Amino acid sequence: MNADETYRTVMTVDPPATDSPFEVASREFLFGQVWNRPGLSIRDRRLVALACVAAADAVKPIDDHVYAALRSGDLTIDELNEVTLHFAVYCGWPKGSQLEVTVRTQWHRIHAERGEQTPPWPVRTVDDLGPADREQRIREGQQLFTDVNLVDAPPSDSPYFYAGILNFVFGHMWARPDLSRRDRRLVTLPCVALSDAIGPIHSHVDSALGSGDVTYDEMQEICLQFSAYYGFAKGEVLQDAAERWRARASR
Amino acid sequence: MNADETYRTVMTVDPPATDSPFEVASREFLFGQVWNRPGLSIRDRRLVALACVAAADAVKPIDDHVYAALRSGDLTIDELNEVTLHFAVYCGWPKGSQLEVTVRTQWHRIHAERGEQTPPWPVRTVDDLGPADREQRIREGQQLFTDVNLVDAPPSDSPYFYAGILNFVFGHMWARPDLSRRDRRLVTLPCVALSDAIGPIHSHVDSALGSGDVTYDEMQEICLQFSAYYGFAKGEVLQDAAERWRARASR
Amino acid sequence: MNADETYRTVMTVDPPATDSPFEVASREFLFGQVWNRPGLSIRDRRLVALACVAAADAVKPIDDHVYAALRSGDLTIDELNEVTLHFAVYCGWPKGSQLEVTVRTQWHRIHAERGEQTPPWPVRTVDDLGPADREQRIREGQQLFTDVNLVDAPPSDSPYFYAGILNFVFGHMWARPDLSRRDRRLVTLPCVALSDAIGPIHSHVDSALGSGDVTYDEMQEICLQFSAYYGFAKGEVLQDAAERWRARASR
Repeated sequence: MNADETYRTVMTVDPPATDSPFEVASREFLFGQVWNRPGLSIRDRRLVALACVAAADAVKPIDDHVYAALRSGDLTIDELNEVTLHFAVYCGWPKGSQLEVTVRTQWHRIHAERGEQTPPWPVRTVDDLGPADREQRIREGQQLFTDVNLVDAPPSDSPYFYAGILNFVFGHMWARPDLSRRDRRLVTLPCVALSDAIGPIHSHVDSALGSGDVTYDEMQEICLQFSAYYGFAKGEVLQDAAERWRARASR
Repeated sequence: MNADETYRTVMTVDPPATDSPFEVASREFLFGQVWNRPGLSIRDRRLVALACVAAADAVKPIDDHVYAALRSGDLTIDELNEVTLHFAVYCGWPKGSQLEVTVRTQWHRIHAERGEQTPPWPVRTVDDLGPADREQRIREGQQLFTDVNLVDAPPSDSPYFYAGILNFVFGHMWARPDLSRRDRRLVTLPCVALSDAIGPIHSHVDSALGSGDVTYDEMQEICLQFSAYYGFAKGEVLQDAAERWRARASR
Repeated sequence: MNADETYRTVMTVDPPATDSPFEVASREFLFGQVWNRPGLSIRDRRLVALACVAAADAVKPIDDHVYAALRSGDLTIDELNEVTLHFAVYCGWPKGSQLEVTVRTQWHRIHAERGEQTPPWPVRTVDDLGPADREQRIREGQQLFTDVNLVDAPPSDSPYFYAGILNFVFGHMWARPDLSRRDRRLVTLPCVALSDAIGPIHSHVDSALGSGDVTYDEMQEICLQFSAYYGFAKGEVLQDAAERWRARASR
């Protein structure tokens, strides 16, 4: 596929004319050279790009990518709602709020364009919040922390770890349905990469690769997809973490 | 207090219905589990959250948190104006500008809602700008740098240190009235944490704890409050800095 | 010039081998398609890229770009020191601190590699701090604010505007020597673009173009250079601001 065809497939609308160096280069690079590469599905690339545009607070790109994700059928409304929650936890609730609103807006827009009634928004109950038993949550959080991160659970002795990481992030969020663990990694990896937090970058790259959820070749594509949307400056750090993992793994 | 009651206390308005995973989880986690924790006052938590929402460029959350800070009476208009300046210096003026506008807007809104005339906005004079004598500013800046950071002042030989850090940041800004040094730390800590600059993260965590302005237990709550609003990826780095301080302090 | 030759010119060292999709794409895109474009000098592109890598907290890229800026002779040590201060003001002091250290380190490294003694570091005096008279500073700050931003100076009635913007940012920093106003715009534009603050993005794009300091065609190149280093998600917002300016200007 050439750049314009790829644009149409990814964004689900006709490509606008390109008449500035920025537009020419972004069409050619993003759609002619990145999105149409093999090695990572368009759906997977969407998860990376969604996290990047949401983090960039770029309202129109958020609209466009959420619309395209829904219209293409690559992500269901339930999956997108989970992406919003997962993104908010890793990039902060304030940035999540724009994505939250956008998912609703684009969901209505797509049904309106089709002349359809928007289906009823899913009802949430307390059963959606994970186990009520707090000891069970911590216990399951410790287990899932280890399953995801491939290291021992952290001590339960700080609010950050106990009330935050064990009780909520791993005791509930990573265990929620609608996104696979691999999907969640595809949202998490750009979030840690754009956060520049070097410890989390290494631990999430290592565990994504070490778990087998993401192959080394796929990680290369994730680095490139991320760099295209969030810049090569930060991309270089993610890439470096992947290289270090491979160097260790091959010893 | 349950999540909805805490929401009402913190945000000073009735909690909206929650019908997406993002909303359900954020209500439950932020208000059911974070804001109502002991160990850090709601006013202190506001300073952390204000820096986080301002940094995230999230217009509605900025509006909501400034409104709530004023309406609750937790922060006066003078204090909020100082928060804006302090935040702008640590997170950059572009991000500060939205907070500046918001403080004015919400200040009017609150008085309008009460059917009151908005009080006259405070007048500023040159006496508000610190010492005119430039040698005195540098000297006082060096002293305050040491008092705040618990290390020697940096060399006066680069524009960054001389015209910036010594002349303005410590020669004037940290010495301004209306916010205590501890208050300023509660704004600075999230700013350095979200900046990802590892040197400043460690120096500000170390000096906040080393000075006694913030206890280790309070720092734990600051880490959680920050993580809740700016994401667990960056929160982990802040938390790690606190742990390293304790490990060194207990030797 | 092909990608490898451009790499050598820009980075001032031999290009490393490329053996991952990330490396291949970044060499080809950054050096084969962006840095060697006409329409913006390599020195100008350096100012944009330096702000981007410094903002990304990417230690090795910061080292590499500061080294290359000095070794190429494109930026003097005095100019780089000013870039550091200007960047710190627009992106926050925490991020500035890494750049501050790097400029010193790379300055020594270059002289050591040449077997030369590092020249004495410039001495700073109070005359380096702008006018001592506080009324004069505010007055000059108001004038320079108008000259740079092409709009009236803001009210002097908040700490953000009075002690910050008028007294320091425009009352002193923008008036400092060693960088031209156009140079300062080339540092400011990426800083506001990466901050996501939509008001400052528009005001700095509008005034850069409206002042004639930057032509529309140059702005296009700045957008592309910025996008390459800080991602197309944020780049699209900058580009959109430039397009809106042109649409208004051509009416």
